[in-house]
Amino acid sequence: MKLNQYIDHTKLGPTVSKQEVKRLVEEARKYEFFSVCVNTTFVKYAKELVKGSSVKIATVIGFPHGTHTPAVKAFETAEAIKDGADEIDMVLNVNALKDKDYDLVLEDIKGVVKAANGNVVKVIIETCYLTKEEIVKASELCVKAKAHFVKTSTGFGPGGAKVEDVELIEETVKGKAEIKASGGIRSYDDAIAMIEAGATRLGASKGVEIMEGEKIDDSNTSY
Amino acid sequence: MKLNQYIDHTKLGPTVSKQEVKRLVEEARKYEFFSVCVNTTFVKYAKELVKGSSVKIATVIGFPHGTHTPAVKAFETAEAIKDGADEIDMVLNVNALKDKDYDLVLEDIKGVVKAANGNVVKVIIETCYLTKEEIVKASELCVKAKAHFVKTSTGFGPGGAKVEDVELIEETVKGKAEIKASGGIRSYDDAIAMIEAGATRLGASKGVEIMEGEKIDDSNTSY
Repeated sequence: MKLNQYIDHTKLGPTVSKQEVKRLVEEARKYEFFSVCVNTTFVKYAKELVKGSSVKIATVIGFPHGTHTPAVKAFETAEAIKDGADEIDMVLNVNALKDKDYDLVLEDIKGVVKAANGNVVKVIIETCYLTKEEIVKASELCVKAKAHFVKTSTGFGPGGAKVEDVELIEETVKGKAEIKASGGIRSYDDAIAMIEAGATRLGASKGVEIMEGEKIDDSNTSY
Repeated sequence: MKLNQYIDHTKLGPTVSKQEVKRLVEEARKYEFFSVCVNTTFVKYAKELVKGSSVKIATVIGFPHGTHTPAVKAFETAEAIKDGADEIDMVLNVNALKDKDYDLVLEDIKGVVKAANGNVVKVIIETCYLTKEEIVKASELCVKAKAHFVKTSTGFGPGGAKVEDVELIEETVKGKAEIKASGGIRSYDDAIAMIEAGATRLGASKGVEIMEGEKIDDSNTSY
């Protein structure tokens, strides 16, 4: 298993500097992570920096609350693709899901999938706010809207990815969507637990620590 | 002083239900608050509910991280106005401010002011992340971009409005913009402190508690 290729190396939020984005890309190039995940304000800048490498650009839409209208999320997606994004991590309209307004949830995801124009779309369902039933419903809606991934967390809610939630999503989507686990994945052991539960992608700001943990694990098992 | 007319009665975030928005509007009508402040996903719904009253609709743009491109914030603003928003509370591009990319910060605010098409624009500078110098610079840029208000906080950062920050903004803008204090204003005393420091608008989820506190204060002073 090439663990590095599971990782979206991530740095998000209002206080990230260009210098930090630069370092993120440097680390991603060194460890050959699948992508860097940055806010839309940094997509163009990061796209320049990954040139000549295999590192892709992921970005976040309607982030982190998902409380935007479908038209805005679709527009933001189209802009991000134009700026060079390869993958789109959108936030579900959690309010609408909880209000059982499934038509709005579906319209929201479908609009982003369409605007992404064939590029990979991951839907952040923000599991920390959801009941088991809501996690199942959200996952079903992601599949119905033809999103490529169900993603657990923004990393800005009160909780991150849990093994039991990843397993529940896996049982629900039954291979019709992939799973990205994100939020609170800080070590090699965390990463392996998520992959064993069914995740095929990991979002983490601790990508370097995870890879260094793998080395330690390898050296341990050689004894 | 009509304290109720200082208040944007506010309920934001990913887990707000339609029922809660309905209650927010009912309270705003009862206490005759200046506005209700809701996420863009609820603007149309809230607009229906305030009909026949003086309560205005405020909404938030690029919320809460401000890490969106100028094009997206302008589009989101135009959509919100179309949906019925009367006032626009946008989040500054804090990343760009900290990177001293003032051209981007200005472009970002100007684009929203233009898209708001004469409607009031408040710029949330998120003081909790800023140094004193950055608060001054952000306030100057708000004035330069012809925003109507400098607003302290989203309520989702690690800190809210502080009296000393409101005073610093007041000294900087010198009447060329108004000030909205928001985040952590929970009582009548908090509200009065902010107004004495220079705020002419308050963002609070505790509008009802603030008004009930005023009644208690009035009854105390009558003795």
